[in-house]
Amino acid sequence: MLKAGSEHLRQLRDGRTVYIGAEKVSDVTTHPAFRNGARTVAALYDLKASSPRFSYEENKEKYSAYFLRAKTREDLEKRTQLHQAIAQMSHGLLGRSPDHVASFVTGMAMNASVFGRFEKNLLSYYERMRREDLYGVYAVVPPQAARNPEFYEKKNLPVPTLRVVREDDAGVVISGMKMLATGAVFANEIWIGNLIPLAPNQAAEAITCAVPVNAPGLTLWSRKPFERHAQSEFDSPLAWRFDETDSMVMCDQVKVPWERVFVHQDAVLARDIYIKTPGHCYGNHQSNVRFHAKMRLIVGLASRVAQASGANEIPAVRETLGRFAALEATLGGMIAGQVQDAEDWPEGWKTFNRRYMYAALNWCTESHSQIIDALRELCGGGIFQMPADISVMQDAKLRAQFEAYWQTPQLGATERMKLYKLAWDLIGSEFAGRHLQYEKFYAGASFIIRNHNFREAPWEGFHKVVDDLMASYDIPRQ
Amino acid sequence: MLKAGSEHLRQLRDGRTVYIGAEKVSDVTTHPAFRNGARTVAALYDLKASSPRFSYEENKEKYSAYFLRAKTREDLEKRTQLHQAIAQMSHGLLGRSPDHVASFVTGMAMNASVFGRFEKNLLSYYERMRREDLYGVYAVVPPQAARNPEFYEKKNLPVPTLRVVREDDAGVVISGMKMLATGAVFANEIWIGNLIPLAPNQAAEAITCAVPVNAPGLTLWSRKPFERHAQSEFDSPLAWRFDETDSMVMCDQVKVPWERVFVHQDAVLARDIYIKTPGHCYGNHQSNVRFHAKMRLIVGLASRVAQASGANEIPAVRETLGRFAALEATLGGMIAGQVQDAEDWPEGWKTFNRRYMYAALNWCTESHSQIIDALRELCGGGIFQMPADISVMQDAKLRAQFEAYWQTPQLGATERMKLYKLAWDLIGSEFAGRHLQYEKFYAGASFIIRNHNFREAPWEGFHKVVDDLMASYDIPRQ
Amino acid sequence: MLKAGSEHLRQLRDGRTVYIGAEKVSDVTTHPAFRNGARTVAALYDLKASSPRFSYEENKEKYSAYFLRAKTREDLEKRTQLHQAIAQMSHGLLGRSPDHVASFVTGMAMNASVFGRFEKNLLSYYERMRREDLYGVYAVVPPQAARNPEFYEKKNLPVPTLRVVREDDAGVVISGMKMLATGAVFANEIWIGNLIPLAPNQAAEAITCAVPVNAPGLTLWSRKPFERHAQSEFDSPLAWRFDETDSMVMCDQVKVPWERVFVHQDAVLARDIYIKTPGHCYGNHQSNVRFHAKMRLIVGLASRVAQASGANEIPAVRETLGRFAALEATLGGMIAGQVQDAEDWPEGWKTFNRRYMYAALNWCTESHSQIIDALRELCGGGIFQMPADISVMQDAKLRAQFEAYWQTPQLGATERMKLYKLAWDLIGSEFAGRHLQYEKFYAGASFIIRNHNFREAPWEGFHKVVDDLMASYDIPRQ
Amino acid sequence: MLKAGSEHLRQLRDGRTVYIGAEKVSDVTTHPAFRNGARTVAALYDLKASSPRFSYEENKEKYSAYFLRAKTREDLEKRTQLHQAIAQMSHGLLGRSPDHVASFVTGMAMNASVFGRFEKNLLSYYERMRREDLYGVYAVVPPQAARNPEFYEKKNLPVPTLRVVREDDAGVVISGMKMLATGAVFANEIWIGNLIPLAPNQAAEAITCAVPVNAPGLTLWSRKPFERHAQSEFDSPLAWRFDETDSMVMCDQVKVPWERVFVHQDAVLARDIYIKTPGHCYGNHQSNVRFHAKMRLIVGLASRVAQASGANEIPAVRETLGRFAALEATLGGMIAGQVQDAEDWPEGWKTFNRRYMYAALNWCTESHSQIIDALRELCGGGIFQMPADISVMQDAKLRAQFEAYWQTPQLGATERMKLYKLAWDLIGSEFAGRHLQYEKFYAGASFIIRNHNFREAPWEGFHKVVDDLMASYDIPRQ
Repeated sequence: MLKAGSEHLRQLRDGRTVYIGAEKVSDVTTHPAFRNGARTVAALYDLKASSPRFSYEENKEKYSAYFLRAKTREDLEKRTQLHQAIAQMSHGLLGRSPDHVASFVTGMAMNASVFGRFEKNLLSYYERMRREDLYGVYAVVPPQAARNPEFYEKKNLPVPTLRVVREDDAGVVISGMKMLATGAVFANEIWIGNLIPLAPNQAAEAITCAVPVNAPGLTLWSRKPFERHAQSEFDSPLAWRFDETDSMVMCDQVKVPWERVFVHQDAVLARDIYIKTPGHCYGNHQSNVRFHAKMRLIVGLASRVAQASGANEIPAVRETLGRFAALEATLGGMIAGQVQDAEDWPEGWKTFNRRYMYAALNWCTESHSQIIDALRELCGGGIFQMPADISVMQDAKLRAQFEAYWQTPQLGATERMKLYKLAWDLIGSEFAGRHLQYEKFYAGASFIIRNHNFREAPWEGFHKVVDDLMASYDIPRQ
Repeated sequence: MLKAGSEHLRQLRDGRTVYIGAEKVSDVTTHPAFRNGARTVAALYDLKASSPRFSYEENKEKYSAYFLRAKTREDLEKRTQLHQAIAQMSHGLLGRSPDHVASFVTGMAMNASVFGRFEKNLLSYYERMRREDLYGVYAVVPPQAARNPEFYEKKNLPVPTLRVVREDDAGVVISGMKMLATGAVFANEIWIGNLIPLAPNQAAEAITCAVPVNAPGLTLWSRKPFERHAQSEFDSPLAWRFDETDSMVMCDQVKVPWERVFVHQDAVLARDIYIKTPGHCYGNHQSNVRFHAKMRLIVGLASRVAQASGANEIPAVRETLGRFAALEATLGGMIAGQVQDAEDWPEGWKTFNRRYMYAALNWCTESHSQIIDALRELCGGGIFQMPADISVMQDAKLRAQFEAYWQTPQLGATERMKLYKLAWDLIGSEFAGRHLQYEKFYAGASFIIRNHNFREAPWEGFHKVVDDLMASYDIPRQ
Repeated sequence: MLKAGSEHLRQLRDGRTVYIGAEKVSDVTTHPAFRNGARTVAALYDLKASSPRFSYEENKEKYSAYFLRAKTREDLEKRTQLHQAIAQMSHGLLGRSPDHVASFVTGMAMNASVFGRFEKNLLSYYERMRREDLYGVYAVVPPQAARNPEFYEKKNLPVPTLRVVREDDAGVVISGMKMLATGAVFANEIWIGNLIPLAPNQAAEAITCAVPVNAPGLTLWSRKPFERHAQSEFDSPLAWRFDETDSMVMCDQVKVPWERVFVHQDAVLARDIYIKTPGHCYGNHQSNVRFHAKMRLIVGLASRVAQASGANEIPAVRETLGRFAALEATLGGMIAGQVQDAEDWPEGWKTFNRRYMYAALNWCTESHSQIIDALRELCGGGIFQMPADISVMQDAKLRAQFEAYWQTPQLGATERMKLYKLAWDLIGSEFAGRHLQYEKFYAGASFIIRNHNFREAPWEGFHKVVDDLMASYDIPRQ
Repeated sequence: MLKAGSEHLRQLRDGRTVYIGAEKVSDVTTHPAFRNGARTVAALYDLKASSPRFSYEENKEKYSAYFLRAKTREDLEKRTQLHQAIAQMSHGLLGRSPDHVASFVTGMAMNASVFGRFEKNLLSYYERMRREDLYGVYAVVPPQAARNPEFYEKKNLPVPTLRVVREDDAGVVISGMKMLATGAVFANEIWIGNLIPLAPNQAAEAITCAVPVNAPGLTLWSRKPFERHAQSEFDSPLAWRFDETDSMVMCDQVKVPWERVFVHQDAVLARDIYIKTPGHCYGNHQSNVRFHAKMRLIVGLASRVAQASGANEIPAVRETLGRFAALEATLGGMIAGQVQDAEDWPEGWKTFNRRYMYAALNWCTESHSQIIDALRELCGGGIFQMPADISVMQDAKLRAQFEAYWQTPQLGATERMKLYKLAWDLIGSEFAGRHLQYEKFYAGASFIIRNHNFREAPWEGFHKVVDDLMASYDIPRQ
């Protein structure tokens, strides 16, 4: 099924519990902190349904292309194409758009035997997700610094990190917190799991399952929502529409029926399901494509900003723009390469080249801050020349002064302000600040990403290069 | 005179014209966008008056130490000491605190003959500033991209950049914009000038003068004020108190009497007054000291944040903290060195070592973004775990949950939230974003700072090192 | 034809004139400064002939695959495969192996109409190159700082930079210097041209032609040859075999027949032939592949060195190794992507994606120094612990001490020394120093590479992203 | 006593055992691998004796100023001044010039009670050093990867790392290796010790003592000596004169009388003697000053190289030169600051500000590679244009061609070659490669230096900044 945007909005009015500080949000589709974000998500659903390129058929049923388990390079290309369309519409500002977790689950469904006794559950869940065109997000990291249960037990406090507190014939009961359910406010389902390795004695935390956002006992604690604080679309065009939201997931005795359980009491498997299936790779290929869309916005802005002040005529600035373009193409090349050197894995399927995907993750994590910093450099002090907000146009005298004094040979006053306000929402606003923080941790801290790269590297091959070379000569004879 | 903080607040209620977008602010000391900032400035005045260490006597009059024209190393140390006290109270977040422009003027008054026919004006102004303990700020950069008068003239538009439009016996009349009067909202006077070299034909723009903030015809166009958007001191502790404000200065036929004119129709002199006197050096020594105070806050935060999650036990994190400490001491050393190797210049006076001062400026400009980025790395995703705002404490049930679940062995829930909100105001909020932009341009773009370093370098000495070495050997004889 | 290595060696004994300082080299295949390098080149020829994968047939003739003008993605892959084989055999240490300039010429032969009246010459030359399996190198940059002919003319000095000094029915006569004919000592032919834009009045310098290395009047002035200074293969394993040599080309009245002339008196065309044909792209795809082979040696060494001291057990070192692997895959991905997103250009042919190729060039130029620096960090002081050279094994007592004291739990003494000597030849020896210098300039200075990236970027597309976004909202209505 | 250079050379002919590979060097003052280095050291002794500024008097005896235990800021300045003179004469290329270890010992002699029962030994040794004007170097690091004695014991191999193997009334007997005795070939004495913390069970290794270089049983194993491989002073001006040499110290039953023992069987004290006395600080202040002298050579070269090609006229290159100057002044400022903020520690004495000293060490370690890389960028390909060596001048015809073709408007051919050869010896030769490796480890790996910075940082003060700020506000009242 290809769900319509309007249908998705309808589904969001399901009694879910979302808090902004002490405020309880009754309807996320109309609340001033979330309504535009919700509309953006709905628009993605409509986009997806707008062209046959974005879906595929299986057994006469139509599914979103991000549920496609690839058998050919063309299948991989089809997946990439939809990720691109979604990312370009949202300018790469939604890290957890509907194609992210869906890709994880799809990848898992290509090697479901890894799940052992829960294999059938995983496959059924995959079927249901694609059939109902569900928007799933995840919460797969324990709350920071809460990894020492003794401390809490000694003080008679609940252990903060989410765990199974009971089980019976119907299923398991979970309680505790999990972070950081980006997008949950706009989603249908939350995948609960563990992306970071667990210690062997963390069996109770090893639960991996899926819960509906409106499950009884589940509450979302939102971080400060930027959409609410955007003064106008003109003043904060990105925060206005593209705040994907982040929330802590708080579970208080949430019941999860067995068919929604995928890992239980197995600390090793809880993590293996991501990397022994194409799950992690399919999911993070989307991350690469998303970042690439953002790069296009950044490069475009860099050029427009340089033009706005005439700086584009300066050789050193041209060189900087050339470097921006090179960076955009660096990532573009790495994404294309993932298809060119796709892996025949697991047997019978195709997976994006994992090493290139992890290399791209590493590149994005390492590069984002300095790319934004280079954009800052281009913007100069131009941003702070602008009036506080666009209300200036409401006063005829001020407006006249503004239009006369702020225009430049390159651009009219309003266009300049519009451009700088947009740039600011990418480099300096709180929305921008969240992105600067987030890009560092979207796929885990940098050492985690480097460890993925270490794990997947063909060390034997690399060593052979050195060993063969050294074997080709010896101590000189006298 | 040492002005009391309360007296300074009184002075700010002088009918000045400040716009936030289309809103006209009637009293900056009470307006929710500025009142806390105004109080911070007042507190600096009270601090300054609180100890004899922060002032000096001349002709039985007491003056703020930043008006001291140094004759000895001890005098320089006295200056530094007051800069430090001011910067530490405001954590280096006020770039244009009352000691910045005052130091420029003091430095100029040490070599006032540079001003030629306006020498007396400059000296009188210096006398008045220190006698009345005035808070001066400056606007010394033309609006971006507005350097082409023909464009405006052809379109019958006013030339945006500030210039003399008329002169008579009483003085000159100026019109146009000048950027970026940081702190002007809280100041008594604005120094109008040109820090960037002018073309020879820009005589009309070469005007350098001082105007009271409430001068008829002068309006301040504020950029978005962050204080107003701070939800509470707890949620935005830095924006709440330390938004120094930035404004465009718009002059519409502002009259400036001759005694307030320092340069007129001399494009070269307009710039020389800064670098042929200790003005630029005295003023930017303050910038170094200010940044150093910020470094102390940053390093303290880095350590507290690492402790909050227990990460400080990890060797790699300890090493990172060691590096933070090294960076703080790098700048500390460069500031101390400016006194140790002080210059006997101009004759009869002492000036901070200019090369070390410019080197420190270069270091600050080059390093700030990456220092903040390293702090981001330490903060991890911890920030987004926190509730949207501290209103969560107003709901008993939520508060109980928060206190139980968000506490860690290292820290209570509220303390954690307080710490992360503070860190966020330095790395991620819009207030933080403005600092990230500003530190790049406080003393001009990086190429400008490097050109200062080029200009002051003893190239003959450097060349001699190479030349003497090369002269010590020759082509080998056969 | 596929030339045998022995035949190539025979061809090098052709009376060419090569100087090392004042020493004239009579036979480059036996001279201690060049003999191993010559053998390495010969081995590449044998490698190339060893498998049908490395050649293709056209009109019943067999050619080296790097002469293949690609019509399909498979053709491109075939080219890449041979570049890889060559680069892996020489560990990416030969920048100008026989496939570099050959690829330029092949690319040109895909759009030869660009050459105008010399089109036929270019095509004939291409035919001859592939038929005779020639090793061509190039000299396409004027001598540094010699771009001001007036200076030389005034002093009655020859203008240093190579130019046409005469022409007649037989052809042109050229005199002057051109830099930097890497590999010329081992090659058959030198392509003379201009990769850097010429000024319109530099018509005489705009000559583009090919000359045999033994052309009368042509001499090669070699830079210091590292092979000669290598004490033994054990002590300098890379310099021993892989010094590709660099030479200034000095022409004194060298006659070039018309059929070897490709551009004459056309300053614009002299440069356009590279970028208006796939020449530059085909040639520099090889550069990318070559660097990638070097990365594999670097990553293998990084891991072996870490193992040699047991440092590979330290988490931070593992993370570093993961990063090395990520960097290797970054480039690998960008190379694969050039095939995946290959261009249908010029009409009827296939070209590697140019933007990804230039992005990879930029990445290599920007990254090499810091990659080597990271390898230095891993090596620590281990290198200087080793005896001065392997002669230590010739003294029984010293050898016994060496073997007893220098062994570690991880590795025997000799193996350790062998490993560190190899690493040193990549990070610290003069051979290494030349590579550190060269990788910065292999494809021109960094600003030149960024300008290529600027030129090829789809600015309209990037601008559209920004413009469409800005067009989607407007000044808010009151 | 102030020793004459000639006397020092005489002392070096003392029967010491030095190996270059299998070759035994009989006289280091005449051997082609070491003679120029020896002369450079002798020249430093003569320099030192040439002016009263470089010495001080105590009890009517004259001592080199680097033995001065400072009581005043002027004393510190006197020390710095001599370090500067030595470093400038050797362009910062000698890391372990005679003032390095002497400064360690001097610092220790300011707080000798730390040595406990060996206090008197240390003080006597200090007296002897300064009286005889001894050149001491040190070997204070165990051989890499040899920290696991069990491995060697199990295999019946000698444990490689130096340790006490026996003791009697006369003293201790030591056997094993210690790295890396830079300068030992030219020194009188080697200080054996442990700069890196030992494990508690490493009591036998905790020996700290001084041995004459010609002690029976002691041999030096030199790394490859660069002086020997320098073709001429013109071609390798730095390697020719300034190769300070590195050697492994191999002890085979070397007897050390008790009066030369400073620590014995105390793993903690073995390290504390450096940091609980000013030893480490005095010694590494010299390192800072030395690096600063090198910076002056680098900056001079950067400028001369830019002038040689006329690149100094390009704005971006000027900016680069400005940055070079800023970096030189950054370090200069940090060194001067160490005197300005000198510490009154230990009681009664003055010590350079330790935090600034460690910050400068960190800066040098972090910056050297990229500074050299920036110089590479300026040099471009100019280096490889030059003939292989200056022998070219011996052939009249080649010489004429060289002088005609290689000259530029900026510089004659020979001068250009001389300049580039000099630059190459700093950025590309094997001598340069050793410096690139060494500057990373002169004061230990970067993590060690950062840990010094961590240890000395005033964390309480930094925390107080944060804590006081956070204490100044609280949860808002409802």
